[in-house]
Amino acid sequence: MTTTCEDNEMNNSGMDAFSIQNYRRDSTHCFYQNRVIQPLLTDLYQITMAYAYWKSGKIEDQAVFDLFFRKNPFHGEFTIFCGLEECLKFIKNFHYSAGDINYLKSVLPEGIEEEFFEYLGKLTAKDVTLYALDEGSVTFPRIPLMRLEGPLIIVQLLETTLLTLVNYASLMATNAARYRIVAGPVAKLLEFGLRRAQGPDGGLSSSKYAYIGGFDGTSNVLAGKLFNIPVKGTHAHAYITSYSGFDELVTRELPHRESGATADLLELSIEHRKNLSSVLHISTQEANDGELAAMVSFAIAFPDGFMALVDTYDVKRSGLLNFCAVALSLNDQGYRPVGIRIDSGDLAYLSCLARQNFITISEYYGLPWFAELTIVASNDINEETILSLNEQGHKIDCFGIGTHLVTCQKQPALGCVYKLVEINNQPRIKLSQDAEKITMPGKKNVFRLYGTEGWAVIDILQKDDEDPPEPGKKVLCRHPFHESKRAFVTPARVETLYKIWWKDGAIRQPIPSLEEVRNRVQESLGTLRQDHLRHLNPTPYKVAVSDNLYNFLHDLWLLNQPIGELS
Amino acid sequence: MTTTCEDNEMNNSGMDAFSIQNYRRDSTHCFYQNRVIQPLLTDLYQITMAYAYWKSGKIEDQAVFDLFFRKNPFHGEFTIFCGLEECLKFIKNFHYSAGDINYLKSVLPEGIEEEFFEYLGKLTAKDVTLYALDEGSVTFPRIPLMRLEGPLIIVQLLETTLLTLVNYASLMATNAARYRIVAGPVAKLLEFGLRRAQGPDGGLSSSKYAYIGGFDGTSNVLAGKLFNIPVKGTHAHAYITSYSGFDELVTRELPHRESGATADLLELSIEHRKNLSSVLHISTQEANDGELAAMVSFAIAFPDGFMALVDTYDVKRSGLLNFCAVALSLNDQGYRPVGIRIDSGDLAYLSCLARQNFITISEYYGLPWFAELTIVASNDINEETILSLNEQGHKIDCFGIGTHLVTCQKQPALGCVYKLVEINNQPRIKLSQDAEKITMPGKKNVFRLYGTEGWAVIDILQKDDEDPPEPGKKVLCRHPFHESKRAFVTPARVETLYKIWWKDGAIRQPIPSLEEVRNRVQESLGTLRQDHLRHLNPTPYKVAVSDNLYNFLHDLWLLNQPIGELS
Repeated sequence: MTTTCEDNEMNNSGMDAFSIQNYRRDSTHCFYQNRVIQPLLTDLYQITMAYAYWKSGKIEDQAVFDLFFRKNPFHGEFTIFCGLEECLKFIKNFHYSAGDINYLKSVLPEGIEEEFFEYLGKLTAKDVTLYALDEGSVTFPRIPLMRLEGPLIIVQLLETTLLTLVNYASLMATNAARYRIVAGPVAKLLEFGLRRAQGPDGGLSSSKYAYIGGFDGTSNVLAGKLFNIPVKGTHAHAYITSYSGFDELVTRELPHRESGATADLLELSIEHRKNLSSVLHISTQEANDGELAAMVSFAIAFPDGFMALVDTYDVKRSGLLNFCAVALSLNDQGYRPVGIRIDSGDLAYLSCLARQNFITISEYYGLPWFAELTIVASNDINEETILSLNEQGHKIDCFGIGTHLVTCQKQPALGCVYKLVEINNQPRIKLSQDAEKITMPGKKNVFRLYGTEGWAVIDILQKDDEDPPEPGKKVLCRHPFHESKRAFVTPARVETLYKIWWKDGAIRQPIPSLEEVRNRVQESLGTLRQDHLRHLNPTPYKVAVSDNLYNFLHDLWLLNQPIGELS
Repeated sequence: MTTTCEDNEMNNSGMDAFSIQNYRRDSTHCFYQNRVIQPLLTDLYQITMAYAYWKSGKIEDQAVFDLFFRKNPFHGEFTIFCGLEECLKFIKNFHYSAGDINYLKSVLPEGIEEEFFEYLGKLTAKDVTLYALDEGSVTFPRIPLMRLEGPLIIVQLLETTLLTLVNYASLMATNAARYRIVAGPVAKLLEFGLRRAQGPDGGLSSSKYAYIGGFDGTSNVLAGKLFNIPVKGTHAHAYITSYSGFDELVTRELPHRESGATADLLELSIEHRKNLSSVLHISTQEANDGELAAMVSFAIAFPDGFMALVDTYDVKRSGLLNFCAVALSLNDQGYRPVGIRIDSGDLAYLSCLARQNFITISEYYGLPWFAELTIVASNDINEETILSLNEQGHKIDCFGIGTHLVTCQKQPALGCVYKLVEINNQPRIKLSQDAEKITMPGKKNVFRLYGTEGWAVIDILQKDDEDPPEPGKKVLCRHPFHESKRAFVTPARVETLYKIWWKDGAIRQPIPSLEEVRNRVQESLGTLRQDHLRHLNPTPYKVAVSDNLYNFLHDLWLLNQPIGELS
């Protein structure tokens, strides 16, 4: 039934899903992989504006738009910028099909001139220039993540889709990076969120950007296939409950890893369970036989990868005992089990109990590796759960995280905006009663200034025509809104944050691989002082404007804000 | 560049995007439309379980799974069931391609038998039977929205994807239905959430299920095209700020609707603005000329659909005055303007102010329709905002709702689960310390009992082999967990909630159209008493079990729960 996809999948199986260069020849590829984001994935007002611009003769107008956000998510003080590669793909392929045009004719009011549709049909993004940060960079409020220049109509038409592609990608990568910070560098983090994401593609985006943000893998098989992300998984409670006793176990034999000599793994396990009962002081009476049968069957299927869910009936009185019995049986047959997953209950207590049991067994049976078996925890975990577990001294090696990760429950939207800042070389401004909501007019550049110890100290926005800051030279950094907040900074190093990614109809930088973007996240976070990253009351990172830009902004604000009369 | 899609789009432009019957011939269709949800869009553990089942000879085992949730979202007392059609599409097309199998071989541990992959390659859902509620039905915790029967392996393999398709669809439709309830039946509701959704497809799902839940349209053009939903939109602040004065207005002429006689719309508007200044007691000095120019240009482009954003500079002192001036000019030329959008500030106050101005003008100029101009509000609106606006007595006709709607901020995941309840005709149970988390074993049917006044009174779960309740006959309804909570109900009408949707490899019911599902939502909500639907402290709707099922459940629970020893 999916035969239309199959051949392509076969031919492209070795393809790098992140290679844009190869995009064209894969465009027949089915569904998600290298999907074409259609230009109709936008708000209708973009099209009505395009017509109004066209109708008023503004085809040649040149505009500059900034894409930025105003507040870091999750009560934090940093954000990871993601989604750039997908934006480039979208821009590269921007084109209305004849079907699109027909649809637009059907929804726009009557009386739209036919010539406009001809114009739309020929429109591409070849005259657009895109400046942006590196994907995976740490960034902050008010820094334009992207600056787009080009004909007003086309640059305006890109708005919604770019926001859609950047907003969730950045939110998700930031969320994942925060989990990585609280879990520490050693713990494994797995994304288990597919079933709670915003439908199929929401799930794919989650898996991809969770990995980029610092997770080690996903349960989502398709994401693994498309993005070459490690996929992980054992079994569900249903697997355990599908067995209610020993007699349902049809296959019991497992050949020894080296000798090939077969043993009855159920018999071995029952025997071990009896002995373990006294070693661990747990009555076998309360251990569930269906659970043992299920674990034995799973061990026979995956003797080298035996990882079992232990909380279906009772972790302490049934699951752990059964698991350890099967693990020892596997050892008898020359295999090394992997560990357990706990999906309910008091994770700190149960993980410590499990670890203690593993150590006891390790010592009793003289099996050092038994003490090191992996403990995975996975019940509704969020950042606070991990912090609380850290305080309690848990023994968890790996967290499986779903709902809170993919829905970004604490703040499910980033709130990027896309604002016109210049038209035909004239700055443009959107005023607001709320100072923080006023846009920063004009074409701007961004630099990151580093101190002598290597930490990032401040980001500074300048007018496009200003000379960049130089290492060793004093720079006056000003708060964009508060006159009195200013400081001199003498950077040890200056990083130019923008690169030109798209110009003259072509991608202008090598697109980094998924792994490179993932590394970039950690590298970029590594330049921030710990106090910017901590969970509780993190220190805001400073984003300043140059003196020149400060004066320019304030002159324009005053010019555009009429003096009201109180009445 | 999207030429691979174009021809199909042209050929299918009249196609009903919701017709499954037509699915096969559209399978070459590009990207979203009639997308094939791949069976790899699942958790890896489904595949490892499948292998373990296969390896242990459980190929012929027959299983029953229930898909249900435990808690209504958004602190409410109802949920709308959605996603069924997409599930049917997925089940119908369930098939691993050769590429899928190759990928699975690469991620599963070594030593998996080749025969298993051959088995997987031939697997389809033809032996599965799917019972489900009607899509768009109101439903409640613990009611299985779907019951799946069939070979254990395939029914288990469907889990994650079904959850993904039902969870967000139902959450979104429920959220939309809640907005409809607080906004009342008259207000128009538009979904504006694309840019804040979980990526491209998250946005499409949002638009679709918001419409089903009771919204009137979306800004998302692609959703409009794919699902035949009304699309709406005017312009953004960027459009207004793209003009800074009169001299930027190239085209000023607008022909009269009937006579064709051309007039300078800018001149007319400046003249009207002067007069309005005294009528409305607003100084023209503070009205922004760029804003007037932008509105004039927009009015020339859309003389029959003039709707303008009035809050770019100052609603009271600039936006309203400019809008009314252009509106009167359009009237001079024989056109009827549509209204305004307010995207910031005090929406209650500003909408009342706008309405008052419209009424004043209506009376002064003798134009009754002017008093009725549409007022759209759209700034970060959620349920509570609408309730608060209702209390304050706003004059808004239409709400544009984005972030809070599509991210379901108040509860971004529904939490449906998929539990094994029977295997080879033997009931299965998953115990838990938490009574609410214990599964209800066995194959069950669901009926809704209606009272004499037509309201739905209670839903009752029965064992599959029990006779259905009958109108006029007393039924003992019991709380599933609390022994003492029980009541007799004599239904005036009994509704069988399940239908067989998929059996013997075919869809067994006509798939309702999007409009039919949308109507079903309102019809189904209409059977609930108002106190179940209200925002504050709604009354829980009762879900009961039959006496027979109660006894069956409790016997099983006791049988499976070993008596512990306190120590």
